[in-house]
Amino acid sequence: VIERLAIIGVGLLGGSVAKAVRAGGLAREVIGIGRDRARLQPAVREGVLDRATTDFREGLAGADLVLLAAPVLQNEALLERVWPLAADGAIVTDVGSTKTGIVRLADRLRSGRALAFVGSHPMAGSERSGYAFARHDLFENACVIVTPTEAVDPRASKIVTGLWEALGARVAVLDPEVHDRVVAAISHLPHLVADALVDAVVRFEPGATAFAASGFRDTTRIAASDPAMWQEIFVANREALLASVGAFRMALDALEARVRADDRAALEADLARIKRAREAVA
Amino acid sequence: VIERLAIIGVGLLGGSVAKAVRAGGLAREVIGIGRDRARLQPAVREGVLDRATTDFREGLAGADLVLLAAPVLQNEALLERVWPLAADGAIVTDVGSTKTGIVRLADRLRSGRALAFVGSHPMAGSERSGYAFARHDLFENACVIVTPTEAVDPRASKIVTGLWEALGARVAVLDPEVHDRVVAAISHLPHLVADALVDAVVRFEPGATAFAASGFRDTTRIAASDPAMWQEIFVANREALLASVGAFRMALDALEARVRADDRAALEADLARIKRAREAVA
Repeated sequence: VIERLAIIGVGLLGGSVAKAVRAGGLAREVIGIGRDRARLQPAVREGVLDRATTDFREGLAGADLVLLAAPVLQNEALLERVWPLAADGAIVTDVGSTKTGIVRLADRLRSGRALAFVGSHPMAGSERSGYAFARHDLFENACVIVTPTEAVDPRASKIVTGLWEALGARVAVLDPEVHDRVVAAISHLPHLVADALVDAVVRFEPGATAFAASGFRDTTRIAASDPAMWQEIFVANREALLASVGAFRMALDALEARVRADDRAALEADLARIKRAREAVA
Repeated sequence: VIERLAIIGVGLLGGSVAKAVRAGGLAREVIGIGRDRARLQPAVREGVLDRATTDFREGLAGADLVLLAAPVLQNEALLERVWPLAADGAIVTDVGSTKTGIVRLADRLRSGRALAFVGSHPMAGSERSGYAFARHDLFENACVIVTPTEAVDPRASKIVTGLWEALGARVAVLDPEVHDRVVAAISHLPHLVADALVDAVVRFEPGATAFAASGFRDTTRIAASDPAMWQEIFVANREALLASVGAFRMALDALEARVRADDRAALEADLARIKRAREAVA
């Protein structure tokens, strides 16, 4: 059981952790820290947070677990701010979509003070953001990737892993750089592609959106995601994302060449291979 | 009321029309025509078809409405075969995803014999195919685009429009070439992009699919569509599709340039514009 959990950023993910921890009785006390006290009040009123504060020193005092749940680049700035203020022995984790940057930063900070940082990335969420959409069951059956390094005390990894498992998630352990390549392909690339698809249609054939059916709607649902959150993800994972975009462009070029060449047998073979690959995805 | 409806190709769409027509009592008789008598038997056993045949002459005799429901290029070949065999005064329509080719073909055939062809494109379906997935309510609240030309008797257009409306669809009328540009953008491009996305991920980062969440799954659902059907659509609508791919590539290049340049403010403005555009899609 956690004595005192401090959550910085009580939005969709931070708020869902708070609700799930409360629902599961996993922490004696849950503190919300944010820039705007008024925006933290709904969670206090609902009893999801015991207290809310804009003061980091006050919010972090006595917290044995600290969760950074702001957009990904902001989490890096928050980590630098939290490091000197956190209680001795505190474990810090996050919910950001990229891991190499924050893990390297923690390694640097650790040379000044021996705190444990274990990166976490819950593969859950939606195109909606904010505490209003937070759900106590958001992490049930979700996958959470944790990215401990050799420098991290295994007991800290175990506590962070245990928290996610207690929230109903399956936990996978990856190296931070492998994590960033994997999510570039499976998450960040699809987002950028969905964004480009919407932009192309509304600019090139604006009247077409009146005829959108479930294919277009599903393919582009994530293009309605939070712009502030996603520009940070794209930029934070730039190198891996650009490599994924390159792979995507090669795949698109190859399919386009089949269409252009009217090579129906080869095109059908490509589509059959792709259908099998898609059906193999759980 | 239709006296005798002949449906060529009793798969997802043809079977759904048959079920809906039966459920609504819209035709006195529904005949299924296909290449394989055994595959037509389930619909006969269920009472959805009154009769099934592999003989076009027999199946078309006395039919006042003929529906072509094979893959799109096959529908063109079927139209040439049906034209001389159809009853005097019969109206022919189809369910294909492209319209310019088949409408032009009907215009040529009409110079030999005065029959009415009205192109139809129900924007309904799913990544699954075959009669087993046919549903009597597939067209309820769906959009059906019909593409009559000036050469078509307005009474024939009215009968085809009336059929789709009786099946619960909203009907829109478009010029065949406008139709093909619109569906290239809103349907065929998203399919090709979803295909390329799956192909890129499984080739470039195969381990990543283990971490697929709802974003990837929704974005690529249509990549599991029927390969035989979709190679025909891509090829039949080649020019419009290639133009849409060009527009998509420009949109992707522009977003990629923002990421590469680390231009976070401009990137966030792009994503905000795209989010608004996506939210404006019904």
